[in-house]
Amino acid sequence: VRIDLNSDVGESFGPWVMGADAELIPLVTSVNIACGAHAGDPVTMERTVRIAVDRGVAIGAHPGYPDLAGFGRRRLDMSDEELEASLVFQIAALDGFARAAGVELRHIKPHGALYTTAATDRRVADAVARAVARVAPRVILIGLAGSLSLEAGRACGLRVAAEAFADRSYEADGTLRSRRLDGALIADPRLAAEQAVAIARDRRVRTHDGHDIGVVAETICLHGDADGVVPRARAVRAALEGAGVDIAPLAG
Amino acid sequence: VRIDLNSDVGESFGPWVMGADAELIPLVTSVNIACGAHAGDPVTMERTVRIAVDRGVAIGAHPGYPDLAGFGRRRLDMSDEELEASLVFQIAALDGFARAAGVELRHIKPHGALYTTAATDRRVADAVARAVARVAPRVILIGLAGSLSLEAGRACGLRVAAEAFADRSYEADGTLRSRRLDGALIADPRLAAEQAVAIARDRRVRTHDGHDIGVVAETICLHGDADGVVPRARAVRAALEGAGVDIAPLAG
Amino acid sequence: VRIDLNSDVGESFGPWVMGADAELIPLVTSVNIACGAHAGDPVTMERTVRIAVDRGVAIGAHPGYPDLAGFGRRRLDMSDEELEASLVFQIAALDGFARAAGVELRHIKPHGALYTTAATDRRVADAVARAVARVAPRVILIGLAGSLSLEAGRACGLRVAAEAFADRSYEADGTLRSRRLDGALIADPRLAAEQAVAIARDRRVRTHDGHDIGVVAETICLHGDADGVVPRARAVRAALEGAGVDIAPLAG
Amino acid sequence: VRIDLNSDVGESFGPWVMGADAELIPLVTSVNIACGAHAGDPVTMERTVRIAVDRGVAIGAHPGYPDLAGFGRRRLDMSDEELEASLVFQIAALDGFARAAGVELRHIKPHGALYTTAATDRRVADAVARAVARVAPRVILIGLAGSLSLEAGRACGLRVAAEAFADRSYEADGTLRSRRLDGALIADPRLAAEQAVAIARDRRVRTHDGHDIGVVAETICLHGDADGVVPRARAVRAALEGAGVDIAPLAG
Repeated sequence: VRIDLNSDVGESFGPWVMGADAELIPLVTSVNIACGAHAGDPVTMERTVRIAVDRGVAIGAHPGYPDLAGFGRRRLDMSDEELEASLVFQIAALDGFARAAGVELRHIKPHGALYTTAATDRRVADAVARAVARVAPRVILIGLAGSLSLEAGRACGLRVAAEAFADRSYEADGTLRSRRLDGALIADPRLAAEQAVAIARDRRVRTHDGHDIGVVAETICLHGDADGVVPRARAVRAALEGAGVDIAPLAG
Repeated sequence: VRIDLNSDVGESFGPWVMGADAELIPLVTSVNIACGAHAGDPVTMERTVRIAVDRGVAIGAHPGYPDLAGFGRRRLDMSDEELEASLVFQIAALDGFARAAGVELRHIKPHGALYTTAATDRRVADAVARAVARVAPRVILIGLAGSLSLEAGRACGLRVAAEAFADRSYEADGTLRSRRLDGALIADPRLAAEQAVAIARDRRVRTHDGHDIGVVAETICLHGDADGVVPRARAVRAALEGAGVDIAPLAG
Repeated sequence: VRIDLNSDVGESFGPWVMGADAELIPLVTSVNIACGAHAGDPVTMERTVRIAVDRGVAIGAHPGYPDLAGFGRRRLDMSDEELEASLVFQIAALDGFARAAGVELRHIKPHGALYTTAATDRRVADAVARAVARVAPRVILIGLAGSLSLEAGRACGLRVAAEAFADRSYEADGTLRSRRLDGALIADPRLAAEQAVAIARDRRVRTHDGHDIGVVAETICLHGDADGVVPRARAVRAALEGAGVDIAPLAG
Repeated sequence: VRIDLNSDVGESFGPWVMGADAELIPLVTSVNIACGAHAGDPVTMERTVRIAVDRGVAIGAHPGYPDLAGFGRRRLDMSDEELEASLVFQIAALDGFARAAGVELRHIKPHGALYTTAATDRRVADAVARAVARVAPRVILIGLAGSLSLEAGRACGLRVAAEAFADRSYEADGTLRSRRLDGALIADPRLAAEQAVAIARDRRVRTHDGHDIGVVAETICLHGDADGVVPRARAVRAALEGAGVDIAPLAG
């Protein structure tokens, strides 16, 4: 049994620090780096790429809606052309820092409202997939396990990877519980570790209302913007290793 | 005798149109496309790249200070790290649209206050050259003829190209007359055409105060943001052709 | 019979010009000035206020979704707190220029996607009304005739004014035909003038599919961002005057 | 002997938190609230005003260069018209939240590079003073003790207040030591407290190179964006009270 551990990083902006990237990055196998639209700026992108390269962690782009004040968590009604062009822009910008550091992008994972919208709205999922196919056709598109994101990616000829979450709770239909509702985040390291093992080893997750549902995922996300992510990441790693799961990056 | 004709294009933003790109692009041999920092947005970048590709015109990046409201014409006191990272970001973003369209960037030309600062401030010139060398080492760096920009580019191992202006007037020291002063712009198509021929054929330009100075340039700029650029471009082309000058893009 | 003529102005940004404010402002009785979120910038706001004061035209704020690249025409899923605070910010900023010029804000009219959303979504209409009531309780809130905007304004104790459009076509339910559909804009000065007279004198408008519906409006909008607005405004004025309609600003 | 204690607050932006405003505000007598240009956003402005009103602390505007990524710490070469209009915009926007909360602005203090530039560049100092005089003629303009900022304010008929710093070190000429140099910040609460007492009681400050210079100040700044500001503020208050200094807001 094998799983990738990914985290959203590079989400500082200008003078404002978010997350604990230097400590977190060595604990995961893939990082999704913000591209300046919902978070991140050129200096942050460059420094984050460098940390990831130094630690041998796979680098991916983490594009989002162009809405800094809203951190990409607010749905923005962009046209297909606007969304595709914004994604090409963001992915290419991050790719520039990766190439300048001598590495290639391994994957792309949309952020926030774009991620959740692409999971259930095929028009948005298709625009995301087309943008990736145009600017980075060989990278892996990460999307919510079982969602339209992955279907749209496959339809565009992309290699896709299904994602599940150690630190977010699930609804009965397999979607993530909205951050606007209580119990959306799983802060307790022990509970996050249990959920990670359930996903990776047992291919199931317990929903917010207490049922077990099946989930098939190649990668598990740990949120870099939340408090306590470092101890949670340590607990998840330890539990996965204790359960005999091989923690390794996505294969290209 | 051979000269490249370049123009700054793709300087619209969102709902706001600047210039007459569709008419101007076929009249030049190289275009410098804004990269979203001082002007341009992802949709504009994509559309402008497409027009240039359709017309067979060489594509270059036109990065500037990240200051949309000031159109990159206000000096911004960025650190070297900030400036380099901003340029890597901008150039890479435009490169993404070029690659998605199946072409390569031919050149890079800084915009506005960054262009004029890099011409006389070696620290800034070096930061520009380093950024280009890191993200696009095979492209041509365009700088003001005789300026520090070109020295810095050569010092970084870049191919450089000296630029002169058909529609801007010159000071006695070979710098451009500031846009804040009267007589900075040469609007009259006939005068711009005369200046273009003087530069390309005779390797000299008449300064604002009436003296002739030598200038050696591989490319001549026509400003895309100014009124009347299309008739001016036509007049310049006709005059150059009449003077036996070969109008052709920069050789890679 | 009396009607106010209003127009959206001050929608330039930085180096980018939109509209023909200096020519249009003398032709209307009220102007809605963009507040820097969807369009406008401090210099534009100041200059536009000055033109309106010089011409004796009533000044209003024209706040929109904070989305410059999208010109406030894309729905943005802001929380109530975010939307209210954004509106207080925008209205207060414009009010500062008005006060510095010695005049008071007469009215407020939301822009673009905020205007159309507030017309049909009571939660958004309430947030708009609350923001106005908090920062400018004595101004007039302009909203689509017959819409929830006006109900929400009245519920907050605001003086409201119903608006109709000379240069937009209507659907059968009294909403504006979407700009994404053909026939949304009425460019022909003669047709716009006819529609203005029908609204002001006859209290009806012919819909896009050819039926007459009733409309009761105190103010008629002429769009400042569209081509041909100046001749259209002249035609509308002339037709209204010819029909014996008194063109005068909203009474405070 | 009487002194005001002021702090820069409201410098969070969107999802990014800066400072510890809720803890710091009760420890000072005046707060300078960021206005959305270098930091702050409408929701942050509103919440910060509310905390200050609840705590009975005097509210001031803290406008800066419109440069979020650079946090207003980079000099931006704005024209006088641009700078004045930007300041009117920022001050008016904050004033809107103050009025909505039922209080008046007491003071205005420029931020970062604008503050230091206005201290030594009379053209910039004049533009700041003119903007304040136009939009808020009755507020107090805070500037560096002994600097051109105060002269320019007086020349515009403004009430001015001289400021000194407890947590920044001074050069021999009475200017602040640049943040780019070592020893610019005084992090040790005991040293900051000593410097505050020297300023308030003894009207002198020891410079970075060890000399005592005179300083006459009505208000002392504690930086809200720095680590350890809360214990530093407590130490400064305790030392001032122990030295018999009356800590009270600026009189209007």
